[in-house]
Amino acid sequence: MNNIAYYNGKISTIDDMTIPMKDRAVYFGDGVYDVAFIKDGRIFALDEHIQRFMNNCRLIEIDFNLTAKELERVFNGMLGQLDNFSDGMLYWQASRGTADREHVYPGSNVPANLLSYIKPKSFPDLTKGIKLITLPDPRYSLCHIKTINLIPNIMASEKAKKSGCDEAILIRDGRVTECSHSNISIIKNGRFITAPLDCYILPGIARGHVIEICGSLGIPVEQRIYTPEEMMEADEILVTSTTTLCRAACEIDNRPVGGKSKDTVRHIQDAYLKKIG
Amino acid sequence: MNNIAYYNGKISTIDDMTIPMKDRAVYFGDGVYDVAFIKDGRIFALDEHIQRFMNNCRLIEIDFNLTAKELERVFNGMLGQLDNFSDGMLYWQASRGTADREHVYPGSNVPANLLSYIKPKSFPDLTKGIKLITLPDPRYSLCHIKTINLIPNIMASEKAKKSGCDEAILIRDGRVTECSHSNISIIKNGRFITAPLDCYILPGIARGHVIEICGSLGIPVEQRIYTPEEMMEADEILVTSTTTLCRAACEIDNRPVGGKSKDTVRHIQDAYLKKIG
Repeated sequence: MNNIAYYNGKISTIDDMTIPMKDRAVYFGDGVYDVAFIKDGRIFALDEHIQRFMNNCRLIEIDFNLTAKELERVFNGMLGQLDNFSDGMLYWQASRGTADREHVYPGSNVPANLLSYIKPKSFPDLTKGIKLITLPDPRYSLCHIKTINLIPNIMASEKAKKSGCDEAILIRDGRVTECSHSNISIIKNGRFITAPLDCYILPGIARGHVIEICGSLGIPVEQRIYTPEEMMEADEILVTSTTTLCRAACEIDNRPVGGKSKDTVRHIQDAYLKKIG
Repeated sequence: MNNIAYYNGKISTIDDMTIPMKDRAVYFGDGVYDVAFIKDGRIFALDEHIQRFMNNCRLIEIDFNLTAKELERVFNGMLGQLDNFSDGMLYWQASRGTADREHVYPGSNVPANLLSYIKPKSFPDLTKGIKLITLPDPRYSLCHIKTINLIPNIMASEKAKKSGCDEAILIRDGRVTECSHSNISIIKNGRFITAPLDCYILPGIARGHVIEICGSLGIPVEQRIYTPEEMMEADEILVTSTTTLCRAACEIDNRPVGGKSKDTVRHIQDAYLKKIG
C-alpha cells in the first residue's frame, strides 16, 4: 500500500479507516492537529512539529497520553509499513476522547484519541508564483492554536479557488494576519517583515525556518504588523507552509505583485531545500 | 434499545456507530447541526429546526441532498424503531462529504453525510435557578450559523462547570452576546429584552418561541444590544435553549441576580410548556 492510517493503535488504509461517531472530533471539532513533510522517506522537523502539537494540546486542555518519543515511534512505525515511500505528508490529530455529546469535558478517565495518516504528496515547484485573493478575516481569537475548527479557513480556500487563485490572504482591522492555511510575509528593501505571533497567527514551522534562514543569510527580520497596502507595494511576498514550503506571490486580487527581489527569494528557498536535505 | 444512531442510511446504537475517517466533520469540523426536543414520543417544532438546518447548510455552502420531508421521514423512522420512547433529544448533522483532506470543497459529485441520533433525556426542572459566569467571547463572526466548530463553546462550558456553574455568558465589546450553548435575555420593568440577531447570535428556536409567547402575553419585546451591567440589574435573566427550554438565572459571577419578576417568568414558562403539549 502507498498510504497508511492509524487510529488508537488500529491500522488500515486511509479509505478503510473508521472511527466511532462518539469521537468528540466528529461533533465538536474538538481536537488539535499537525502536519509534517516527508522527503526521501524521512519526516522533516518532526521534533518541532511534535513540540508544537504537545503545546496545542495544553492550550486547549487536551490531556494527551503519549510522550513525544512514543508519538515519534508510532509515526516511524507507520512509515516503516510503507514500501519505498519517498515524498509525502504525515497528518495527525488528537481529539478529546470518545464520549456522549456534552459540552463539558469528559472525565479524566476518557483518554484522548490519536488519529494519523501518511500519504504521498509530490514535491512543490518553488519557482512557480502563487496567485492570491484578499478576504476579511472572520476567525476566532484562538488562531494561534492549530485546532480542527477550520470552517472559516476552508470557506476562504474555496473562495480563492473559485477566483482562480491558490490561497486567500486574511485581513483583520487593516492588517494582514495570515492565509487560510499558510503564513504570509513580505520582503521590502532587503528586510524580511512578518506579522508578530499573537492570537490571530499560527506559529508556522516553515515561517520559523525562514526567519532562521534570514538570520543566517544576514537578512534583517522585523516581526511587526503590516498593512495590505505595504504588502501590495512589497518587493516580494512569501507564502510559507509545511507542504508548500516557501513560495513567492505573483498576483494578489488580479494585480501583479512582487518579483522585485528574486535573488533574495531564491537564496531563502535554496537554504530551505538544503535544510530539508 | 433505548437509543438509535443513523449514518447515511446505516442504523445502530450510538455506541456502535462508526463513520469514515475521511468524513470532513472529523478533520475540519466541516458541518452544521441541529437538536430538537422530544416530549412524549413527539419531536417538538421539528419543521422549524429543519428549516434552520437547511438554511445553515446554505450559509456554509453544503449542498444537502435530502428534502425537509425526506429528513422528517428519516427521523420519524428512527423514532419508530425505539420502544416506548418518551422524553429525549434528536441530534443531527450534515458534513461536507467524505473526501481526501483538502481545504477546498470536494466536487459536487461528493454528497453530504447525514449523521443523527436519538437518545433519552429527562425533562428539565424549570423551577430551578441557573448559576452562570461571564467570560470574554472569543468566537468567530459566524456564530449565527449552527456549525460543529465548537471549541470556544466547550471551553467556556468547562470553565462554567469548574466554577460550579451551569452555563457561561459571553461578553464581547461591552455587550452580552449569548451563552456557550443557550441564548440569554433579560426582563426589566415588564419588558423582554434580547440581543438582536447578528453574526454573534444564534437564532435559537427556543428564543423565538419565548419572543412569540411574550407577544401573546402582552409583554413588550425589545431586540437590542444590552450590557453586562444592565443584565446584573435586570428583574429576571432568562436562559433559553432547545433542551433546557426556558429557565431563570439566580446567580451570575457569584452574585445573586434576578428573582424580581417571578410571576412573569412563570407565565412564560407555563405558556412554553403548553406549546410543547
